[in-house]
Amino acid sequence: MADPRFFARQGPFSIGELARLASAEIAPGEDPGRMIADVAALDAAGPDEISFLDNPRYAASFAASRAGACIVHPRFAPRAPAGMTLLTTPAPYMAYAKVSRAYYPPPRPTPAVAATAIIDPSATMGDGCRIDAGSVIGPRVEIGAGTWIAANAVIGEGVVIGRDCSIGACASVTHAVVGDRVMIYAGARIGQDGFGFASDRTGHLRVPQLGRVMIGDDVEVGANTTIDRGAGPDTVIGAGCMIDNLVQIGHNVQMGRGCVIVSQVGISGSTRLGDFVVIGGQAGLAGHLSIGSGVRIAAKSGLNGDVPPGTDVGGAPAVPVREWRRQIAAVKRLGRRGKAEGEPSPEGS
Amino acid sequence: MADPRFFARQGPFSIGELARLASAEIAPGEDPGRMIADVAALDAAGPDEISFLDNPRYAASFAASRAGACIVHPRFAPRAPAGMTLLTTPAPYMAYAKVSRAYYPPPRPTPAVAATAIIDPSATMGDGCRIDAGSVIGPRVEIGAGTWIAANAVIGEGVVIGRDCSIGACASVTHAVVGDRVMIYAGARIGQDGFGFASDRTGHLRVPQLGRVMIGDDVEVGANTTIDRGAGPDTVIGAGCMIDNLVQIGHNVQMGRGCVIVSQVGISGSTRLGDFVVIGGQAGLAGHLSIGSGVRIAAKSGLNGDVPPGTDVGGAPAVPVREWRRQIAAVKRLGRRGKAEGEPSPEGS
Amino acid sequence: MADPRFFARQGPFSIGELARLASAEIAPGEDPGRMIADVAALDAAGPDEISFLDNPRYAASFAASRAGACIVHPRFAPRAPAGMTLLTTPAPYMAYAKVSRAYYPPPRPTPAVAATAIIDPSATMGDGCRIDAGSVIGPRVEIGAGTWIAANAVIGEGVVIGRDCSIGACASVTHAVVGDRVMIYAGARIGQDGFGFASDRTGHLRVPQLGRVMIGDDVEVGANTTIDRGAGPDTVIGAGCMIDNLVQIGHNVQMGRGCVIVSQVGISGSTRLGDFVVIGGQAGLAGHLSIGSGVRIAAKSGLNGDVPPGTDVGGAPAVPVREWRRQIAAVKRLGRRGKAEGEPSPEGS
Repeated sequence: MADPRFFARQGPFSIGELARLASAEIAPGEDPGRMIADVAALDAAGPDEISFLDNPRYAASFAASRAGACIVHPRFAPRAPAGMTLLTTPAPYMAYAKVSRAYYPPPRPTPAVAATAIIDPSATMGDGCRIDAGSVIGPRVEIGAGTWIAANAVIGEGVVIGRDCSIGACASVTHAVVGDRVMIYAGARIGQDGFGFASDRTGHLRVPQLGRVMIGDDVEVGANTTIDRGAGPDTVIGAGCMIDNLVQIGHNVQMGRGCVIVSQVGISGSTRLGDFVVIGGQAGLAGHLSIGSGVRIAAKSGLNGDVPPGTDVGGAPAVPVREWRRQIAAVKRLGRRGKAEGEPSPEGS
Repeated sequence: MADPRFFARQGPFSIGELARLASAEIAPGEDPGRMIADVAALDAAGPDEISFLDNPRYAASFAASRAGACIVHPRFAPRAPAGMTLLTTPAPYMAYAKVSRAYYPPPRPTPAVAATAIIDPSATMGDGCRIDAGSVIGPRVEIGAGTWIAANAVIGEGVVIGRDCSIGACASVTHAVVGDRVMIYAGARIGQDGFGFASDRTGHLRVPQLGRVMIGDDVEVGANTTIDRGAGPDTVIGAGCMIDNLVQIGHNVQMGRGCVIVSQVGISGSTRLGDFVVIGGQAGLAGHLSIGSGVRIAAKSGLNGDVPPGTDVGGAPAVPVREWRRQIAAVKRLGRRGKAEGEPSPEGS
Repeated sequence: MADPRFFARQGPFSIGELARLASAEIAPGEDPGRMIADVAALDAAGPDEISFLDNPRYAASFAASRAGACIVHPRFAPRAPAGMTLLTTPAPYMAYAKVSRAYYPPPRPTPAVAATAIIDPSATMGDGCRIDAGSVIGPRVEIGAGTWIAANAVIGEGVVIGRDCSIGACASVTHAVVGDRVMIYAGARIGQDGFGFASDRTGHLRVPQLGRVMIGDDVEVGANTTIDRGAGPDTVIGAGCMIDNLVQIGHNVQMGRGCVIVSQVGISGSTRLGDFVVIGGQAGLAGHLSIGSGVRIAAKSGLNGDVPPGTDVGGAPAVPVREWRRQIAAVKRLGRRGKAEGEPSPEGS
């Protein structure tokens, strides 16, 4: 079970309730009234716990699991161990998400304003906010109901934050308008100047960065991620985007809805993403590109050209994924028969 | 126009004043007394606003723009729409930078020391500083006139910061001597121990890191960037360097003047850069290298050898850019005719 | 010598004492009573200072050094300049680490609890802790004796931290159990939710992240590094691991003892590392991999498969290092005779 120092559990729930929450099927002979106390991983779960199988890599753990119940795709049902109640669904991970959120609902902040929070008198705040110790909220900030500002976070002058958001410890937000139910994790940096300057032989002159960061509803921004404000246009993060830790998003970037940006990705200025674009970890996108909806970009790729909607690409410079796999195969063949060169060492520094 | 919640505009200015500020030419028939209220992007500007064209990619937006005035290279003049007053110059982006800074001058901090700032009595401070809420300034710190320390920033014992600097929210600076007009963005980490330890079969023993970080005048350090202090020698950032977000600079690195380091670059310990080196995003440099002045390194490159001055390099391991382009072309040809391998998937995790 | 604004020196020590500390040999004719005042780099050291030679790249500086004493491998002894006392050892860098720590012992915090620290009454603390200004320590936190919490750090509810640890300025730690003598640098983010959500056509639903971050003794976590807590299992960092700045460690990752993770590495969720794995800068590991003990991964590599113990690998996708060197050599040959393609530019954005 989850460490009670950190997590408060709800429940128990019956198999019937869980099946309903998960939109899953129970086999005819099973008892819908059987009570399940908790969620747990396949290899840790016991008879009063429910687990799930989504990644086929863990099929052996499923077959050996002592879990009392398990959410699985129907095709795995024949491999279930004896005594395990199955909740079958074509989308087991989504079903598990729903079940797990029943046992461990996202924490609702207990409304409170810490005495040591430093709040400008011109800031406004909806009902039920939690404002933690040491946070600093600037002039004319507007914060919606039920929003949680964690300890030592800094919200700059004029920023607007919606309802039921959470701003992590030590994060900073300036020059931004943030939607509802947005989660900004610890140490994220939203709204600072973009990397814009004019250069000549004598040096570099900063160009005023006059746009904002506009963040849609239900967005997540990972820990220590940086999102620069626009140079004139705004930087725009569409509703429902999931952005991991240590990502860099340059000025004027526009992302559509539901994009998934894995850790350490960098998106250069003025590049536009359609809806539901997926970018693997450590990939980098040059500036001023147009990436169509549904594009998937492999981890570590480098993009310097536009990508039409629905395309999978990989490599640096990135090419369609089928072509990229052939490149990899060809280079591997070269490496197997070629002659070594003495240069690179396996040390990083 | 820029959102007045976040930006205070100066002006209006006449075409004549703007041309003088921009060192640009006005065509003979134009009215130098025509008043211009604001700057705006080509596709957003109206008749009382001035825009600019620098990237030829946006030439069509220029030809269709409703901007009352525009800063352009003389070669684009024939494509200007009717009614647009042209300010021509061979350096339109620098000219725009100067015009834009007239409308939106860099914010001058209003001098004030927040009651909740925690300032050691032995720290000293010049006139006109702004010290924001929750910032912590340690013993014997020296801060020059006109410098702004943002909310919840931490300045460690003995640090020296020059005049007219700005230290961002939640940034931390230790073991450092910082010049004038330096901007350190939110969450940057300056002066912590470098990654130095001796290892044997039993483990790792940290080696004391006894140098400092020396930052020249007019440097910018991006959000959440990390610069470690020297191990014995200092880590040195030359005057006028522009460093983007999430960059890592190892101990003992020495950078000359005016270098441009794009986001997520990593420079390993003891590597030296000359003046005006440009490093594209996500590139990585091994330690103990010597990179000559004027070198330009393509995004995502990996360097494990010295580079002579004035060379453009790319790739991993990096080679002269011409050779790198041939590598790319050759690998692309292999990918178009080769056989695929099933391994990599387009998912990042 | 180290800047006294930042460093307090001990000593002097005699050659005899230093040789004993370093487990090094002194040549028969030398005076073990000669006093040495400080450590210094080869090119900066004077007659009353001790230096070291470890990287053969600096052999010329050794031959030209004015250092009064030097720690070296016996094979370099013949190249020593006149008047230099040699301390010979097969492990000069480890010997230097010990000598240097005698002159500059790791700072012991002066016990004190700042009046402006915000400490929940239910938190407990051992003897001799130093709790700096503006730090925030939540309910039921347990902090061991001699631990230093730096300014504006945030320790979340229920977190356990061992003895003699140091938590850097503006760092945040939640959902974690931390061992003894652990150093977490400024701005590190420990314990936030992992990047876990279920997706369908309508969007993404966050999955509760119910594990912790377990950090062993003697671990270092670099500045602005992010370590997500487990999804159900814990994220585990083994004793003695050294993690550099800006590293990303995903949920459920398990690392053995003594691993070295260089800056900007990303390790995706559920990947397991054995003991003493070394990962070069900017490398990326896909999720669910198994990396054996003693594996060394070259900088910038991309791993999408398991690696058996004791293997050196490089490249993206990574292959055994010998094969990788042949790949590099083959691609270089292609680049020298091939035809260029016009695409990539040396600019990063």
